[in-house]
Amino acid sequence: MKLPNALYIQSGGMTSVINNTAYTIIKTIQKYPEKIGKLYAGIYGIVGVLEDNLLDISTLSEIQIENIKNSPGGVFGTSRYKIKSINEDFAIYETLVHIFIKYNIHYIFYNGGNDSADTALKLSKITQEFDYKLYCIAVPKTIDNDIACTDVSPGFGSSAKYIATSMYEASIDLKSMCKTSTKVFIMEIMGRHAGWLTAASAVWKNNDSDPPHICLLPEIPFNQEQFLKLVTNSVNKYGYCSIAVSEGLRDETHKFISHQNTNDSFGHTQLGGVASILASIIQINLGYKCHYAIPDYLQRAAKHLCSKLDIEIANAVGKAAVEFAIQHKNNVMPCIKKIQTNPYLYEIECISLDNIANVEKKMPLNFIDKENLTITSECKEYILPFVSGEVFPKYSENGKPIFISFT
Amino acid sequence: MKLPNALYIQSGGMTSVINNTAYTIIKTIQKYPEKIGKLYAGIYGIVGVLEDNLLDISTLSEIQIENIKNSPGGVFGTSRYKIKSINEDFAIYETLVHIFIKYNIHYIFYNGGNDSADTALKLSKITQEFDYKLYCIAVPKTIDNDIACTDVSPGFGSSAKYIATSMYEASIDLKSMCKTSTKVFIMEIMGRHAGWLTAASAVWKNNDSDPPHICLLPEIPFNQEQFLKLVTNSVNKYGYCSIAVSEGLRDETHKFISHQNTNDSFGHTQLGGVASILASIIQINLGYKCHYAIPDYLQRAAKHLCSKLDIEIANAVGKAAVEFAIQHKNNVMPCIKKIQTNPYLYEIECISLDNIANVEKKMPLNFIDKENLTITSECKEYILPFVSGEVFPKYSENGKPIFISFT
Repeated sequence: MKLPNALYIQSGGMTSVINNTAYTIIKTIQKYPEKIGKLYAGIYGIVGVLEDNLLDISTLSEIQIENIKNSPGGVFGTSRYKIKSINEDFAIYETLVHIFIKYNIHYIFYNGGNDSADTALKLSKITQEFDYKLYCIAVPKTIDNDIACTDVSPGFGSSAKYIATSMYEASIDLKSMCKTSTKVFIMEIMGRHAGWLTAASAVWKNNDSDPPHICLLPEIPFNQEQFLKLVTNSVNKYGYCSIAVSEGLRDETHKFISHQNTNDSFGHTQLGGVASILASIIQINLGYKCHYAIPDYLQRAAKHLCSKLDIEIANAVGKAAVEFAIQHKNNVMPCIKKIQTNPYLYEIECISLDNIANVEKKMPLNFIDKENLTITSECKEYILPFVSGEVFPKYSENGKPIFISFT
Repeated sequence: MKLPNALYIQSGGMTSVINNTAYTIIKTIQKYPEKIGKLYAGIYGIVGVLEDNLLDISTLSEIQIENIKNSPGGVFGTSRYKIKSINEDFAIYETLVHIFIKYNIHYIFYNGGNDSADTALKLSKITQEFDYKLYCIAVPKTIDNDIACTDVSPGFGSSAKYIATSMYEASIDLKSMCKTSTKVFIMEIMGRHAGWLTAASAVWKNNDSDPPHICLLPEIPFNQEQFLKLVTNSVNKYGYCSIAVSEGLRDETHKFISHQNTNDSFGHTQLGGVASILASIIQINLGYKCHYAIPDYLQRAAKHLCSKLDIEIANAVGKAAVEFAIQHKNNVMPCIKKIQTNPYLYEIECISLDNIANVEKKMPLNFIDKENLTITSECKEYILPFVSGEVFPKYSENGKPIFISFT
């Protein structure tokens, strides 16, 4: 009998460490030659599967495979493509099953965030609806840290480390020149509904004088009066003010402070521009010279500064996913269960996607200091392990990082 | 007789490596205890000097001094403060000479860019105008690489490395998701009149398919038709388009594509926003989903990814500056003279500030491919040594970089 094959799919927005998970899945499968035959990757994720565009991993050289874990983005390509339920779009499932039969695929590793967990949940129904054995494992990944049932999402720690480091560096620069030049620096940080990454910018803040002085989170409606008061206070007391703002900041009527008029394919409003709006508010009302940074993709692609624990966790979920598949689990995700904070200890739990798909993990209210627009010590204690320890990629002689891509 | 003392001043916008120069000046002076007494630093640069706010470096601990070279920003503080000539503002020079006499200062190390070289040139006249021996050495520093008479400016290499790495990382991310999501990524890069840093984003580009696909430099007037044609071509051919744009991009009438209505104290227009304007132009005309990043201060404060040669050069000009002072040179700057490109070899030249102050080094025209809006192989060959080799700062156990600041 031919051994069942496996399919790996990258999905949604990328993280700095998703390819570490991909690498671990490849290497773990290699340890079970009696259980799993070939591993295929969907080129551009599920879209590649639908187009019969699969890459046979066994055709890659050992050097190519080693370079996967060194690369940002998604080496096999990803997609933002929402599939409907079997009841709504039977045809797409027929196409998928046709491909699965063609390639003898019985294991799926669906590496993504909330929306992807929903897709994986839908795919997991194939086993019941069709006469076809399929073990579908969702593998967590998102910089937003908003996946339910897991203490942390792989990808968050490295983006958090990049954001915290960049905020600290830019603030030290600002501090050195605030006497005669710019007084306010604003950094616009990714996060539509959950302020995890914006919160991370303050993870090393020990005193009121340390930057950032203000964190504007999507969880707390923007109040201009309070904001301007805190900016003034910071400039008066410390000579400057550093501000971290989440792209998803909303006003008291729940409307985004800034949004572009375009939507992505999931119906999410595409955000951008809140930093420039805040800079205008400050310049008009207080007259301070402002600068703002929008790291955008840089914060989720910064392979040049990854977190050690984040990479460890990205590897751990990859390994667990293969083990779950071999145990013939379906409709599950390996999640992180914290055992101890300092030093951080965890174990992997197997959680049903019914509990995860389409649930968004928000920041606990005791993590937020609403009055001073900053984060609490509980929040810092939670985030700290994920920004500790550095992992750098390999560089070639001319300084170019050694990256690989199969798209 | 009391030994003459020295004064160190940081000036203008910061670089990731200006503190390496500061460190080397401190350590080199320590080697000449028979020549130079104390070293003072102006807190917030020349503004601190005018306010009699000097830091005696001998009061710092060895650990504090070691941490200087690990820190971004300017550890002693900087200023944007233009002083007039002696004829225009005699009083300010009287104040300065008064301070110099009070602290027995006879050596000045003025660490800055073009505007600062002009200030240093003005200070160097004190020796003639007052009966006071002063040896004023300008020490080069700018991320803009626009200082005349030197093959490269300390600070450029590290920002160039950060920009090139970030552009590569973000482009690889974009490439992995372009099939169903964002098609165009734009990075807005510092540089008012010279496109050096924007050019650096393409230093590792070997083929037309490599990112960035378009470099918009201030040297080449923006032509919307040509631009849209190249964007379309890139998306059609490679699935995506990465664009590097200089904040100082101008139209054919020499007007900035984007500018805020504020001016800094030197009368420069404060720029920002060209990336969002380009994104709108693309979205309206071509309908592609765009993302843009504005690294802003991040690109000049990224101590977490410095260039090896840049740090070496930052150290070399610091050492040479002290040696020039001891040789009783005045009104000069240590400049880099290239001896060989690969491997990069250089020597330090002593150049009069009359040749440097207020001169802006532009990119040679043979560095720019006007037709394809990219850089030529000559340009890549020039920039490559400055982005080769990595130097990382020290981190504490919780992942926080170890920075120090005396402001």
